[in-house]
Amino acid sequence: MSIYLHDIPLAQARLRLEEALDAAGRKGVLGFEEIPLNEFALGRVLAKPIWARLSSPHYHASAMDGYAVRSETTELATPATPVDLLIGTQAGYVDTGDPLPAWSDAVIPIENIEPVSEMVAIGDSQGRLNAIRIRSSVTPWSHVRTMGEDIVATQLVLPAGQTLRPVDLGAIAASGHASITVARKPRVAIIPTGTELVPIGQPVRVGNIIEYNSITLAAQVVGWGAEATRFPIIADDFKLICQNVSEAAHGHDLVLLNAGSSAGSEDFSARVVEELGELLVHGVAVRPGHPVILGMIGKKPDQIPIIGVPGYPVSAILTGEIFVEPLLAGWLGRSIHIPLMIKARLTRKVTSPAGDDDYMRLAVGRVGNQVLAAPLSRGAGVISSLVKADGITVLPIGTQGLPAGSEVNISLYRRPDEIENTIFAIGSHDITIDILAQHLASKNRRLISANVGSLGGLIALSRGECHLAGSHLLDPESGDYNIKYVQQTLINIPTKIIVFVGRQQGLIVAKRNPKQIFSLNDLTRSDVSYLNRQSGSGTRVLLDYQLRLSNISSDSIKGYQNEEYTHLAIAAAVASGRADCGLGIEAAAQALGLDFIPLYQERYDLVFLQSYYESQLLEPLFDVLSDRVFKNTVESLPGYNTEQMGKVIM
Amino acid sequence: MSIYLHDIPLAQARLRLEEALDAAGRKGVLGFEEIPLNEFALGRVLAKPIWARLSSPHYHASAMDGYAVRSETTELATPATPVDLLIGTQAGYVDTGDPLPAWSDAVIPIENIEPVSEMVAIGDSQGRLNAIRIRSSVTPWSHVRTMGEDIVATQLVLPAGQTLRPVDLGAIAASGHASITVARKPRVAIIPTGTELVPIGQPVRVGNIIEYNSITLAAQVVGWGAEATRFPIIADDFKLICQNVSEAAHGHDLVLLNAGSSAGSEDFSARVVEELGELLVHGVAVRPGHPVILGMIGKKPDQIPIIGVPGYPVSAILTGEIFVEPLLAGWLGRSIHIPLMIKARLTRKVTSPAGDDDYMRLAVGRVGNQVLAAPLSRGAGVISSLVKADGITVLPIGTQGLPAGSEVNISLYRRPDEIENTIFAIGSHDITIDILAQHLASKNRRLISANVGSLGGLIALSRGECHLAGSHLLDPESGDYNIKYVQQTLINIPTKIIVFVGRQQGLIVAKRNPKQIFSLNDLTRSDVSYLNRQSGSGTRVLLDYQLRLSNISSDSIKGYQNEEYTHLAIAAAVASGRADCGLGIEAAAQALGLDFIPLYQERYDLVFLQSYYESQLLEPLFDVLSDRVFKNTVESLPGYNTEQMGKVIM
Repeated sequence: MSIYLHDIPLAQARLRLEEALDAAGRKGVLGFEEIPLNEFALGRVLAKPIWARLSSPHYHASAMDGYAVRSETTELATPATPVDLLIGTQAGYVDTGDPLPAWSDAVIPIENIEPVSEMVAIGDSQGRLNAIRIRSSVTPWSHVRTMGEDIVATQLVLPAGQTLRPVDLGAIAASGHASITVARKPRVAIIPTGTELVPIGQPVRVGNIIEYNSITLAAQVVGWGAEATRFPIIADDFKLICQNVSEAAHGHDLVLLNAGSSAGSEDFSARVVEELGELLVHGVAVRPGHPVILGMIGKKPDQIPIIGVPGYPVSAILTGEIFVEPLLAGWLGRSIHIPLMIKARLTRKVTSPAGDDDYMRLAVGRVGNQVLAAPLSRGAGVISSLVKADGITVLPIGTQGLPAGSEVNISLYRRPDEIENTIFAIGSHDITIDILAQHLASKNRRLISANVGSLGGLIALSRGECHLAGSHLLDPESGDYNIKYVQQTLINIPTKIIVFVGRQQGLIVAKRNPKQIFSLNDLTRSDVSYLNRQSGSGTRVLLDYQLRLSNISSDSIKGYQNEEYTHLAIAAAVASGRADCGLGIEAAAQALGLDFIPLYQERYDLVFLQSYYESQLLEPLFDVLSDRVFKNTVESLPGYNTEQMGKVIM
Repeated sequence: MSIYLHDIPLAQARLRLEEALDAAGRKGVLGFEEIPLNEFALGRVLAKPIWARLSSPHYHASAMDGYAVRSETTELATPATPVDLLIGTQAGYVDTGDPLPAWSDAVIPIENIEPVSEMVAIGDSQGRLNAIRIRSSVTPWSHVRTMGEDIVATQLVLPAGQTLRPVDLGAIAASGHASITVARKPRVAIIPTGTELVPIGQPVRVGNIIEYNSITLAAQVVGWGAEATRFPIIADDFKLICQNVSEAAHGHDLVLLNAGSSAGSEDFSARVVEELGELLVHGVAVRPGHPVILGMIGKKPDQIPIIGVPGYPVSAILTGEIFVEPLLAGWLGRSIHIPLMIKARLTRKVTSPAGDDDYMRLAVGRVGNQVLAAPLSRGAGVISSLVKADGITVLPIGTQGLPAGSEVNISLYRRPDEIENTIFAIGSHDITIDILAQHLASKNRRLISANVGSLGGLIALSRGECHLAGSHLLDPESGDYNIKYVQQTLINIPTKIIVFVGRQQGLIVAKRNPKQIFSLNDLTRSDVSYLNRQSGSGTRVLLDYQLRLSNISSDSIKGYQNEEYTHLAIAAAVASGRADCGLGIEAAAQALGLDFIPLYQERYDLVFLQSYYESQLLEPLFDVLSDRVFKNTVESLPGYNTEQMGKVIM
């Protein structure tokens, strides 16, 4: 336990770092580098402005294939009174780009020269025309690119700080430069620490954590225009860490020391920074990621900054975004990458600790006229939330939360066209929805699915918060699926119901079924713990229906009140021993190597608003539903059939 | 002259190429490549989806530093009735990320453990606590990251076609992969042809063209995720070109044959394609760039596509954007890069050939509530228009033009924040405006200047089309500058006038002044040709004023009716011999090594609307005006003084 960790506001933390960098002479461009002008200069940042050395064109150039003439000799030409000009003295053939003869001041395009047959006949020995005939005059400098028309020598072509694009390379070349002065790439050392870490590709045991933060940090650094050196994993050993950080301080401009930045018994980062230099900040009031460390290491005047990056992947990435990118931008002399901002409505309420700037990732998509943002899991360890995130918003210090429907400003991680191509599915979870998403991806559609259960999906649909809802709600009276629920939930809203898959529900139990669970009756046994699905999910409706049929009281089932939101979550809980069984689908059981007791066959439908059903956005989805490859993939999963796939129910 | 060139619509051209690719088995991903998962995978495109092999977490992990407990043993703990738990059997210390002991189902964070001093006293021999005291209960699985909470084995982590971002690399690692299957990078050969071409860095003579299209094309190709091979320059020789193209066809997936695609006497590209394979398209109805060639070369079934890229740089870049990028995207299995679209109002009317899709580049900026788009020079050879372009719009086939004020949809080349940081200056041209732009670039502001003369700038200002106008309009009655014109043009609009620079006007003449021109009287000589500035420019007002004073008739001046828009354009014209002299500033003369006859001293002001004068956008501009380094740079130019810089005139 450390005495250091004490959160300060982000702006204050940045200021402390800036002042320390200033004092160490490490603000601004780190150094210049002269490089040849070629395609590898792409993305480099100009350290000096480009002033044109050469005009472009650097001579009067013909803009067309045609004949160079003296414009005043064409003055009298009209359709009725053509003028003939002698080749050699009055007209000279020029290709596009050729210099104009000194005596000429205009070009007549080849297509405006009249073929004069007798002239062809009297062509010279090389078979060329010896005169041309024209029927309209030309003004001075027509069809001529005059010298300096594009760029005049000495003018500013590009300012320092420009990140070079393909067109910039062309303009620099055109203005007479063969090399350029760019900012030296900052060199960043990334040191992963932690006795529990194993490198990717090595066997993973319980308690092991795969070390990948160094890869995501290195990729961030490379993407921001710097160079990354990834160090091997260092065990939680104060001296060993000090030794490696000292080593990294030579030849690098920044050290990122990953994990060990908190206040636990094996968190050495703050002490390491104190040992090797100066601890500036330990703890920043941002979430996730508050245990950030900022410091300077090495002896003055050769100090370099070090950032203690928190170990949770979401915190690590955020630390990169809010501390590393601005630092690198300053050293490269370029402006900070500011993502595109859009406004969107929150699909659900969120809470927030008032004491922090709370960074929240969201999935973003357009549904009808509204841009909607669905908050993703806020856990600092949830790497999948990073992958799913379309953008990020900040709930600033002092905000305790926002109600559903609030408008938030979102910094986008994706291009807006990707947001526009997003299909929002809210409802019941099924494994085949993932396969559908994969097939849609190849058709330029993103399928985002939120798992809130069947009824939750229908409610979201009625509120205009999604394009479709997956649903498998059994109507106990009719034995049919979904129709009654849709009629009750989507009153007077034109709706379509399409069959997606038929699937088997049953009990997911541990491998070789050690507790010998075979029916719902076994759930009442005192040695059996059950894990339930949430209210409103089709699986829960099915369970409650079957319990009623079998006259089993839910009170008699241990764990009935514990809920999970997906089949895979149920399976994962059974696999880990958290529960003995749960109702779910066979594919989930098989995915985790569990046993499965099949009990019921059910239908899983997709429910659409009529208006989206016919939209261009959803067209590719129906293509997939009739795709043989997709059907085969679904049928290869245990317990699935596609016999009725695509059938219109309502 | 060739019989081939015949423009067809873009969609039809694309279709022909697609059908030929299909027939040659060259549609879709070209091949797979297995690569290790590290930071160098950034930007690669997944060729196969990533299904999770491992859950994340892959065991129940503590989410905090604290003590693992069995939740039911905490049930009775309240502030008044604390519960003590024995370390070892009832509580076990865990760091964040540690696996939970099998007997436990919750974690109590370290900060919720009460320090019990007598307990510390009876610590075991290692000095550890042997029990903990708590004053509140915990629910099952609190502060635990349960197995699969983030990712459950078998679920879809990322679809094929995903361009990998830093976070994606983390998620792939977390889900148990150490390598990934990505699309092989397409290999593109780029062959520049043209006897007039010289490589960058070599001496440039009249008629030479610096070869840089191969660099911009290569940079485009690399930026789009493929590999580029740049060939050396090939002379305009049919056999030589055939030989090089044949060679390039081996080991590449696409050949870009630059220039020679038109119908001039040395345009061999179409014949080369016919010689080596099949000519699909010669001419596409797009502007600029219509002489595009599409074909397939090589023997079936090993045919690869070839694109004959027009030689003008703007056409070449556009050909890359509309033909090469979609081809590469298809081969990589990713979606096409669709830029952000915004709506903006045209600052002036544009005309367009009705027979083409006309691609027009524009400078884009926000002025007040309006997003404005200023059309840039449309010449296919104007590389500076590419550098200045903030976006591009298409005037589709059938459009003959658009009036000023029309709303157009623009595909942005820049981030929207860059557009927001743009200062629009319209008005008189001065060389020091470029230096101002360079200084503003380092302060995160882009200065875009359009040169329409002083009066044109004031009119633009009155219409709300710019933030500031550079003006040097002499009032012949008062001898003062700008005030009267501003009062007449910006009626009832609150305005500020600030002195920018004092500068010398005079006659720009050829080196060593061969025609011995020393005053305005010399302009009437029959052996002297003059080049004028446009009406409404301050220099023109000055000339006309001085001609009146000297009783010189404009009719007596040869070339009085020929106009240019900038000082540098006047100087360039004199340097090339297009005219003998022109009125302008000394810096322009010196820039091109010309002589200068000083005649008049004048004041060049910046005119602002009051509202922008006080805006955050313009703040950095006033910082520059009081910056010593900037003043010194301006004063180092011949004929400039900064004595009154920043002085408020009105």
